[in-house]
Amino acid sequence: MNSTQLFEEVVDPYKVVFFDAFGVLKNYKGLMPGVEKTFEYLEQRQKEFFIVTNDASRSPAQLAEKYHQMGLSAITEDRIISSGMLAREYLDLKVNEGIVAFLGTADSAHYIERPGLITLPVSEVNDDNISEVSALVFLDDEGFDWSGDLNKTVNLLRKRTIPTIVANTDDAYPMNASEVCIAVGSLATMIETIVGKEFIRFGKPDSQMFMFAYELVRERTGVNKKDIVMVGDTLHTDILGGNKFGLDTILVLSGNTLSTEAETRISSTGIIPTYICSSAVIQQ
Amino acid sequence: MNSTQLFEEVVDPYKVVFFDAFGVLKNYKGLMPGVEKTFEYLEQRQKEFFIVTNDASRSPAQLAEKYHQMGLSAITEDRIISSGMLAREYLDLKVNEGIVAFLGTADSAHYIERPGLITLPVSEVNDDNISEVSALVFLDDEGFDWSGDLNKTVNLLRKRTIPTIVANTDDAYPMNASEVCIAVGSLATMIETIVGKEFIRFGKPDSQMFMFAYELVRERTGVNKKDIVMVGDTLHTDILGGNKFGLDTILVLSGNTLSTEAETRISSTGIIPTYICSSAVIQQ
Amino acid sequence: MNSTQLFEEVVDPYKVVFFDAFGVLKNYKGLMPGVEKTFEYLEQRQKEFFIVTNDASRSPAQLAEKYHQMGLSAITEDRIISSGMLAREYLDLKVNEGIVAFLGTADSAHYIERPGLITLPVSEVNDDNISEVSALVFLDDEGFDWSGDLNKTVNLLRKRTIPTIVANTDDAYPMNASEVCIAVGSLATMIETIVGKEFIRFGKPDSQMFMFAYELVRERTGVNKKDIVMVGDTLHTDILGGNKFGLDTILVLSGNTLSTEAETRISSTGIIPTYICSSAVIQQ
Amino acid sequence: MNSTQLFEEVVDPYKVVFFDAFGVLKNYKGLMPGVEKTFEYLEQRQKEFFIVTNDASRSPAQLAEKYHQMGLSAITEDRIISSGMLAREYLDLKVNEGIVAFLGTADSAHYIERPGLITLPVSEVNDDNISEVSALVFLDDEGFDWSGDLNKTVNLLRKRTIPTIVANTDDAYPMNASEVCIAVGSLATMIETIVGKEFIRFGKPDSQMFMFAYELVRERTGVNKKDIVMVGDTLHTDILGGNKFGLDTILVLSGNTLSTEAETRISSTGIIPTYICSSAVIQQ
Repeated sequence: MNSTQLFEEVVDPYKVVFFDAFGVLKNYKGLMPGVEKTFEYLEQRQKEFFIVTNDASRSPAQLAEKYHQMGLSAITEDRIISSGMLAREYLDLKVNEGIVAFLGTADSAHYIERPGLITLPVSEVNDDNISEVSALVFLDDEGFDWSGDLNKTVNLLRKRTIPTIVANTDDAYPMNASEVCIAVGSLATMIETIVGKEFIRFGKPDSQMFMFAYELVRERTGVNKKDIVMVGDTLHTDILGGNKFGLDTILVLSGNTLSTEAETRISSTGIIPTYICSSAVIQQ
Repeated sequence: MNSTQLFEEVVDPYKVVFFDAFGVLKNYKGLMPGVEKTFEYLEQRQKEFFIVTNDASRSPAQLAEKYHQMGLSAITEDRIISSGMLAREYLDLKVNEGIVAFLGTADSAHYIERPGLITLPVSEVNDDNISEVSALVFLDDEGFDWSGDLNKTVNLLRKRTIPTIVANTDDAYPMNASEVCIAVGSLATMIETIVGKEFIRFGKPDSQMFMFAYELVRERTGVNKKDIVMVGDTLHTDILGGNKFGLDTILVLSGNTLSTEAETRISSTGIIPTYICSSAVIQQ
Repeated sequence: MNSTQLFEEVVDPYKVVFFDAFGVLKNYKGLMPGVEKTFEYLEQRQKEFFIVTNDASRSPAQLAEKYHQMGLSAITEDRIISSGMLAREYLDLKVNEGIVAFLGTADSAHYIERPGLITLPVSEVNDDNISEVSALVFLDDEGFDWSGDLNKTVNLLRKRTIPTIVANTDDAYPMNASEVCIAVGSLATMIETIVGKEFIRFGKPDSQMFMFAYELVRERTGVNKKDIVMVGDTLHTDILGGNKFGLDTILVLSGNTLSTEAETRISSTGIIPTYICSSAVIQQ
Repeated sequence: MNSTQLFEEVVDPYKVVFFDAFGVLKNYKGLMPGVEKTFEYLEQRQKEFFIVTNDASRSPAQLAEKYHQMGLSAITEDRIISSGMLAREYLDLKVNEGIVAFLGTADSAHYIERPGLITLPVSEVNDDNISEVSALVFLDDEGFDWSGDLNKTVNLLRKRTIPTIVANTDDAYPMNASEVCIAVGSLATMIETIVGKEFIRFGKPDSQMFMFAYELVRERTGVNKKDIVMVGDTLHTDILGGNKFGLDTILVLSGNTLSTEAETRISSTGIIPTYICSSAVIQQ
């Protein structure tokens, strides 16, 4: 099961492909060289595809625009499913009024802006408006002062019993070839421990991400889970989540999981991809 | 938001009701007194209902039969969604051949029996057949020798890299008014820590349980999430899971959460039900 | 065992008293009113006393000076045992050369300054000196830029295999009557999880704090553990640590544990003080 | 620092050697071949040595007897420090009366038998005597019925607020070349999670083990921490605990840590031994 196979051979029997973004389609340098051929191949064979990404820093429109700037026009806004969209759906369904406080950039706040709700950076919560705060959302690790605003967040959650949403569950993300950044998921976990409350987390490996994508797919085409394959570089998020949701899975060795350590990590974690490919780039 | 309301008033605007079983419809003594009136009320008003339960010890047919024996005929097999059904779906989608080893009773094993797979208690795994074991499932805390078979399970997982499914994520369950039993979820967590692998868990609060029920509902009726309310006695499973999936939620005080501690627990956990009712029994 | 008793009656049979600092002798407003009488009482009866505190933000000399400024001259430098002193002992015994990088204020860095070692804020670690860094110490939550320097710390620990010491294990500390601050222990735990390494932690409830104080006591007087009582306001650190080390313990209700919740917290945590007093102030 | 060295060269400058037992002096087959030479060497050079072991299954006298039966007479009862001895000291200092309930064999119960206390297997706790139970001790994974007695333990701890001691913190231990057994530390952790209480744990890497040995050493000889080296096969217990206590440490590759993985494990855990030797057997 675990020897490397050609991506085009592995992907051939499936009607729909879910792709992780970072480490699969792009890295810190830009697009993975040759990955545009993969999308030509998928379009020629009329296979559907979606990007399923733990990202709440930018809207799907902004994320799509980035791909277009890098020369990959196949990835359109309607094909991007981000964990930020689940945070937005939660607010739509469960939070009707008041102030939604957030940690993140102004770009990330677009996810949570909707009629009837006021969005406010945590830095702007004060004694006058704290009683109107009806939810808190962790969106991005940038756009705020860590020391001041994380302490403020702890005290906000000690004073107010409100739902707290984490729109990106990742612990860290790559910044360049050798360095990582602390992601907002780690900051949220630290605060969750201090205040002793239970936050609502959206993002792979949680099934709700895959369900969101699956429902979108079924609106377009009459497929079932057997027709879909999830492609990712991370065992703990992409492969575990895809497996649990009942999808076949492809581990690619172009990102978080190096080819030298793939076998060891699979056997030590017990997270088993259906296939392993060196990358998501077709070789034809 | 958090003062107690009448169940019939709260439930009135919804088209579909999801019920937890233990602590809501029944307890260790049998049915909650008067709960049959609730189902008469729901049927008169043509509201749909489903039982969403972390139970892999018996099949839906067996669970329904139990309700019928206690005098509640409204709960039929097709209205019961159990975490065991998700384990079965996982095997359908992801495990095609070989031996599925399990911990649990013979009754619980019915969940995992299907054409093409051999089901085998962990006690019967041996040097001759261990190489054919393709999955392991934790089903129930009964039906096996804890000391012998849990040790055997640890060594099976050290020798074989196979998916491991936990079909009931609860830590403990009530045995009588003052005592609890260790549930299979706790045994699984202990072994997961020892072997350092990541198991696949099905059961509330995980969204996949709610999704399974939601898909069943939508096949029958054209409702959306706004039309459904989840009723449960446990903040951490029923209410957290319902909230996260985007449903309104009713905490009932007839089981795990006592009326004296409800407010404290809600503010200390940050898990906030939409409504609180003393029980799921209507008062009319 | 658990009804409130007078501090002077409880403390009478012991020859040595260990005091926690915050919530026992002082709070955010200053000294606990009347606490100077307690020290007069102890000195009259020739009882020894020590302050045992999870604090690495200031040296014992600086901490003693603060008590003197508040009007409590009995607490001298040689009677203060801080978690920072254990960090210093670790470096004395185990780190012989190179750069000790730290997170904290210049005041806190005094703990780790010693002949043969260069101390350097994490912010000043760079490509030229990173190979000489031989240890990292978390000292205080102030004195550095959280976003920049915590990210830098993560990458330092990914590049270098060095011992990492946490000189204060507390998660949070009180800032005023209603607000807390994130302590350096929480920041350290977040980074430990991200890098997957195991840090060396000093501070109550760890026995090493109590051992350090105990050795100091025995150099002065011929007492044994039966002669010592630990006084603290926090079950999880002062009482658990004192109990485990074999000391009798007094929970005081003037800080973290409120009188309304003491019984509930004791039974829910299973951490049982030998005595409970309303405060460490004698009533005579 | 991390290349393999000869044991006799490394150990030469130290006056006292602390040895872990399993994986260092013996394994499932018996004594490590040649290890008796090591003790001749130590005695010739008048170096002191102690065995520091996470074992509460047998008394030091019984453990010493086992070594004698295998042909190693140098290891006498007074040179063995076991985690069970710390449990006994705790009872001496902190529990004056009543029933001490335990999980373990009759052999392991010898640790906790002392004048004034009644020791009773958990299986014999009943409605008549439960109110007299003053402490619970986890001693060994054998000697009781896991299913019946672990469930009984959970309910004992829900009904009674008593100190709970774990006399061996190991998760698992080797049974033969390829298989392990679940140790009592894992069973205790499972129950601690279910009941939500905090247990008192004795055993490496906790400093209290090392302190106990250190005090014994200083009664005999005038050494300090710089004169002692800890020898062990497990990074997480022997090496981490020795380092934290301020001792130099030798990782031997004859047990839990294989030579092929030593470097990887050291850099991934950040637990760094002072030296690495292939075994504790001298080559002369």
